[in-house]
Amino acid sequence: MKNLYVKNLKEKLGEEIEFQGFVDTIRDKKWVQFVVIRDNTGKAQMTIEKSLEENQQMVELISKLPLESTIKVKGKVIENEAVKLNGFEIIPSSITVTSERIGLELPFNFNDLANVNLDTRLDNRFIDLRNEKNMKIFQIQSTLVRYMREFLYNNEFTEIHTPKFIGAASESGSEVFEVKYFDQKAYLAQSPQFYKQMAMSSGFNRVFEVAPCFRAENSNTSRHATEFTSFDVEMSYIDSYEDVMDFEAEMLTYALTKTKEIYGDTVKELFGVEIEIPTLPFPKMTLKEIYKELKERYGYEIPESEQIDLTTEAEKLVYKLAKDKFNHEFMFVVDFPADKRAFYHMRDENGKLLGYDLIWRGVEITTGAQREHRYENLCKVAEEKGLGEDVKFYLDFFKYGCPPHGGFAIGVDRLTMLLLGVNNVKESMFLFRGPTRLNP
Amino acid sequence: MKNLYVKNLKEKLGEEIEFQGFVDTIRDKKWVQFVVIRDNTGKAQMTIEKSLEENQQMVELISKLPLESTIKVKGKVIENEAVKLNGFEIIPSSITVTSERIGLELPFNFNDLANVNLDTRLDNRFIDLRNEKNMKIFQIQSTLVRYMREFLYNNEFTEIHTPKFIGAASESGSEVFEVKYFDQKAYLAQSPQFYKQMAMSSGFNRVFEVAPCFRAENSNTSRHATEFTSFDVEMSYIDSYEDVMDFEAEMLTYALTKTKEIYGDTVKELFGVEIEIPTLPFPKMTLKEIYKELKERYGYEIPESEQIDLTTEAEKLVYKLAKDKFNHEFMFVVDFPADKRAFYHMRDENGKLLGYDLIWRGVEITTGAQREHRYENLCKVAEEKGLGEDVKFYLDFFKYGCPPHGGFAIGVDRLTMLLLGVNNVKESMFLFRGPTRLNP
Repeated sequence: MKNLYVKNLKEKLGEEIEFQGFVDTIRDKKWVQFVVIRDNTGKAQMTIEKSLEENQQMVELISKLPLESTIKVKGKVIENEAVKLNGFEIIPSSITVTSERIGLELPFNFNDLANVNLDTRLDNRFIDLRNEKNMKIFQIQSTLVRYMREFLYNNEFTEIHTPKFIGAASESGSEVFEVKYFDQKAYLAQSPQFYKQMAMSSGFNRVFEVAPCFRAENSNTSRHATEFTSFDVEMSYIDSYEDVMDFEAEMLTYALTKTKEIYGDTVKELFGVEIEIPTLPFPKMTLKEIYKELKERYGYEIPESEQIDLTTEAEKLVYKLAKDKFNHEFMFVVDFPADKRAFYHMRDENGKLLGYDLIWRGVEITTGAQREHRYENLCKVAEEKGLGEDVKFYLDFFKYGCPPHGGFAIGVDRLTMLLLGVNNVKESMFLFRGPTRLNP
Repeated sequence: MKNLYVKNLKEKLGEEIEFQGFVDTIRDKKWVQFVVIRDNTGKAQMTIEKSLEENQQMVELISKLPLESTIKVKGKVIENEAVKLNGFEIIPSSITVTSERIGLELPFNFNDLANVNLDTRLDNRFIDLRNEKNMKIFQIQSTLVRYMREFLYNNEFTEIHTPKFIGAASESGSEVFEVKYFDQKAYLAQSPQFYKQMAMSSGFNRVFEVAPCFRAENSNTSRHATEFTSFDVEMSYIDSYEDVMDFEAEMLTYALTKTKEIYGDTVKELFGVEIEIPTLPFPKMTLKEIYKELKERYGYEIPESEQIDLTTEAEKLVYKLAKDKFNHEFMFVVDFPADKRAFYHMRDENGKLLGYDLIWRGVEITTGAQREHRYENLCKVAEEKGLGEDVKFYLDFFKYGCPPHGGFAIGVDRLTMLLLGVNNVKESMFLFRGPTRLNP
């Protein structure tokens, strides 16, 4: 079994090793064969002297071997300053082919994707992901999520797994998918919102979930998918929604710091992006203040009647504003009009919304809020919104005592996209799903 | 915001604190009120002297407060050996009610569930989970999964998030759910099997995923659900399926060791179960050997024609056999008839299946295998099984080189059930979903 990676080969100079990987390139010269072997941590050169008697079998094998086959090599790692790749080479004593590419040409050259249509890439995603940069996206995403989780574990959180099948279809405005469920209909959860709040009512104190969410939105943008991975957090015994904001800022700062330690150089080199560790606290402005400053600073103006949310253009300018005014990449936006927000967000006695959005690099990554935990108030807003029977099961959670609580959700794919400066969420998802894409 | 838990209160003796929790019980005596406050780490006593002038407001508040309301208390932690609960008490200087249980009676007494019907409990799961033991199930589950993940992170694994919407419906024998997907049909993934293998073909090396799986099985057993959380692992460059078995055994041993360190005493006290740290390697027997020994040792016999898998009864006896023969709780079972297994499991040149089941405490927790990564062989088996067009997209993954690989999956809910000796998987899932249960 492979226990040795390209990244660790330089620690093995002079040693006998066993190594496995894809055959990335072969340069078959008159006197020597240079074979570059690739794994998910990098590339290393294997060198075979053609003149040596004991190499004849290997020379013949390599001369016929299709690129992208996989091999297992026994040999020695030798320091050699002449080798541009890492300054060492593997001198093999035996090579076994563990899988051979069958005769077919690759659908495209995955090392040069500039001119490959995105749909062709997604049709052949298993080849597309062999691209070094694409592969790294997911290693970095995995690391980012790992340390977001670690921060939560360190802060008394319990991971839960809530059901994706739900009996009623009414949590938010967006469309839900319908499932044939034996003799009934079921729906797919758009978010774990109701259930993470149920955990609060049960006394779980603090919970999180990382799981798929399903949205039947028939739209094709660079930021939307019918299915995405949501990182959901909910915490009890808060004093205000500002506790939630502070907590989210600390969590992101922790995870970005760890991710930069591990992948900062890689991100800079491959993606041309600097991971900036944010300072705490993150800046915060009201929606009104923002529109005022966008007008004054950048001449951006929309009718007051449309200033009920941030437009996509305004979100982009908020990045500029955050940079110019606070030298920061993040911006909390507060004081959204309460009537445009989900019924479970808390309002204060003056009707002010106790919730927020978080904008990072010009894109909204989070909606968070203190939740309404008082049964009567919650029933009242649900009724005003005309929600009725479908949310009754949810309202019941708040009948028998429930601590004040709040939380937020972050789209993992979108966060990854922004971290790496990738253009499209289709590239930061392992396999994108949209209205017209269900394959592979 | 709550930053102090019952479990940490004893470190605060003599200090001014702020504390929040549920009002668990009130004993209103002539001279004193004893209030037990509960959080998800335990219970603590608050004591209010009725005679003190400054306590009058609090005394009145407590005398009217419904149990299960939540409060915020400022006060001092005082050592007092007379207090049976922990040997200390909180002497409050102020109490704020943060949520009040409305007039209703609780649907049942969650401290005494022995005579409460399981369906009633599940109908009111948010109350059911206030039971100390039920609450702990999920804290322990979270810890177990945390350390399973940690073992993988420490071994070069990347976490992936594969789509749950799939375009075709044919991975295994069990039924799939159909989704109305705009103008098409989609299906819900029964497992991430095809996609974690896609990652192998892309060169990811080692991946895992913790995510929901959906099975449209119209059966009501203590072990099945239409939706469950699967812990899926896949690893490349293995030499044999025994690499996969060894790895799984190490992972489980690591996670059980960590979980015992943290929750061993709790599990013993609340569930009456000892967490046993297994020895490595886990014992291994062939299906044939097992049936032979079950007959010889315990007189258990079924017709040879049915000895193609372990019956439920045989699984239970395997626990006894593992104990009697190896003093072990786990048993790997190998050499299942190849034709009864999924087409993607590898067979050797003699048709022997290179896969296994893992039985823990009498229940199958895993099916694992080396996978068939050779395109021609895979096509042949798929054809023999009559799978055709639906798996074509999957077969394509193996056309362009793919390292030898294998993996396994563990049901998180089932694993939790077995760890804690809980009777029914309905109790080890946050919210169970079955053919007739979609609520709450």
